[in-house]
Amino acid sequence: MPGTIAPLDSSWLRRAAVHQDRLTMPRGALGRLLDVGRQLCAIQQTLAPHADPAAVVVMAADHGVAAEGVSAYPQEVTAQMVANFLRGGAGINVLARRAGARVCVVDMGVNDSAGSIRGTNGVFDGGRTSLGPGTANFLSAPAMTPAQVRQALDSGRRVVRDLLERDGVRAVALGEMGIGNTTSASALTAALTGAPPERVTGSGTGLDEERRRHKVAVIEQTLTRHFPGRTGPVPPLEALTAVGGFEIAGLVGVALEAAARRVAVVLDGFISSVAGLLAARLAPAAVGYFFAAHRSVEPGHRAVLEALELAPLLDLGMRLGEGTGAALALPLLQCAADVMRDMATFTEAGVSDRPS
Amino acid sequence: MPGTIAPLDSSWLRRAAVHQDRLTMPRGALGRLLDVGRQLCAIQQTLAPHADPAAVVVMAADHGVAAEGVSAYPQEVTAQMVANFLRGGAGINVLARRAGARVCVVDMGVNDSAGSIRGTNGVFDGGRTSLGPGTANFLSAPAMTPAQVRQALDSGRRVVRDLLERDGVRAVALGEMGIGNTTSASALTAALTGAPPERVTGSGTGLDEERRRHKVAVIEQTLTRHFPGRTGPVPPLEALTAVGGFEIAGLVGVALEAAARRVAVVLDGFISSVAGLLAARLAPAAVGYFFAAHRSVEPGHRAVLEALELAPLLDLGMRLGEGTGAALALPLLQCAADVMRDMATFTEAGVSDRPS
Repeated sequence: MPGTIAPLDSSWLRRAAVHQDRLTMPRGALGRLLDVGRQLCAIQQTLAPHADPAAVVVMAADHGVAAEGVSAYPQEVTAQMVANFLRGGAGINVLARRAGARVCVVDMGVNDSAGSIRGTNGVFDGGRTSLGPGTANFLSAPAMTPAQVRQALDSGRRVVRDLLERDGVRAVALGEMGIGNTTSASALTAALTGAPPERVTGSGTGLDEERRRHKVAVIEQTLTRHFPGRTGPVPPLEALTAVGGFEIAGLVGVALEAAARRVAVVLDGFISSVAGLLAARLAPAAVGYFFAAHRSVEPGHRAVLEALELAPLLDLGMRLGEGTGAALALPLLQCAADVMRDMATFTEAGVSDRPS
Repeated sequence: MPGTIAPLDSSWLRRAAVHQDRLTMPRGALGRLLDVGRQLCAIQQTLAPHADPAAVVVMAADHGVAAEGVSAYPQEVTAQMVANFLRGGAGINVLARRAGARVCVVDMGVNDSAGSIRGTNGVFDGGRTSLGPGTANFLSAPAMTPAQVRQALDSGRRVVRDLLERDGVRAVALGEMGIGNTTSASALTAALTGAPPERVTGSGTGLDEERRRHKVAVIEQTLTRHFPGRTGPVPPLEALTAVGGFEIAGLVGVALEAAARRVAVVLDGFISSVAGLLAARLAPAAVGYFFAAHRSVEPGHRAVLEALELAPLLDLGMRLGEGTGAALALPLLQCAADVMRDMATFTEAGVSDRPS
């Protein structure tokens, strides 16, 4: 296994807490911002952490299961949106710009038969990451081969190494695009947590209730086919091979490599958090490097965050994906780091810290 | 009354919603960010709103009621923290810097008998705003004279006019500093909403339960003294005169003038939101220009936000004041404005928006 992930060193959490108690404010008055600050200190093993430079890794891929009518949008939207990312016009471009984060679009396996992407500036890594025009339809076959899973994990790892070399990133936000990928994420969540598909399957990009019920039925049949008689959680690599997606597998690699290299990982919504859960099942210490950016409207997201034991920073009724929630949370990590480095202590500022 | 406040024009809200439905994302997928965007459009009467430049107006003053032992910190901390603000070392400086917002420190009436502020760069407006070394102890006398209330409101209005002239601000975050000011805010909340003091009085900067109960008793005696036999809400100017603070009155002026000039007002925690509630009681249309940044740990904040019918954007367990929660929410307003201006439409991006 490349890159061991060290459990967070609790002595850094304690040292960070001692420093925070010296800062010019009532003890604990910045609430969760201080939790984030201590975690960044422990991740980076310093009392002067940074959340810049940051990057949003947006991995895109198509899903064979889209043929089952599980999405409100047609499959060509994946490639069209990748082109939109590359031209800078999508939600993630706008939000990442404000956070000062680079958007790194990775083609993990987009079906670009209409040539939407070809006319643009090109994706990260020159497209070496693409595993083909989408996964197999997992209603009738495994989504991926074990070799494809390994390749996707490796690609995710390589992206992090490249970003470290190029920019020295301190925080990586996980984003994704892929028509049909909430179906994959719901199937993975059910397989990994044992939750019933009905409870972890939402309307994705906007299904009505009838079509959402169809999506639940597709997932139920899928799980029965791949894991007949299952009684407990399915092992992560088995789940990923059977019902995963290229972009989800790639994000697992991103999360594992980032944690191994002491880079903060900012989970976005449902799909990227499922990638985080898969990473955590493969390497439990990875969770120490994770931040849950927000709570998505997708009902499965709650189950995933509970399984990760992470509380989201934002709760703004969002359900866009692309990494948008993670990009919106980056300023909170940046502020948490700034507070550790830049706030004056009671002594430095000559402020009384004894009670009256 | 200087500066009439126009009710938000709902036709701008509708036009903004139509534009949002054209942007490359599933309808409504950015959740509350879109609500914020529509409100900014209606405030500025444009589909291309801005939340920059932004300023945090931190108004500071002392409170006579601090003599009753209602705070965990001694009174000199007010002046010491103002000096900290002016040197750039406080929480609000760190968070405002990240949001690209100017911090504008206003001395509304700080007791600087120890000379903490004198050695620094000086406050906004050359100190013309100071109403003296603090309010009267409202346990035994009205906190302010009616003339002082008028003067404080005028000063707040002037600060906004100056910021508009100097920077062309589009958003003003309300911050405050004043040892004893949660006692004033709790008394105001009880007077304005009719809520029992016990329910809207918290531990402020860190009182233990015994001292918090003492604080509740001081507020109960105060209200009985100033408003014997009151049965309903006290009118805003009467409440402000009896139990307010110079900085709170100043922030009321800031909120009213900002709304009159179509500048977005970002409420911070308990104290600045009470200023917002006073402004709303004086001019109900002002609420259309307000954004509730976060939910403070102070129990009275919930009652104030309910009275304003505002839902906070963040809920991070913060209770620092200074405008820190508002500064942390500024990027959300900035992102909401960016989305309106910079996101591509389905047509521009060549993305299919018809359902599959």
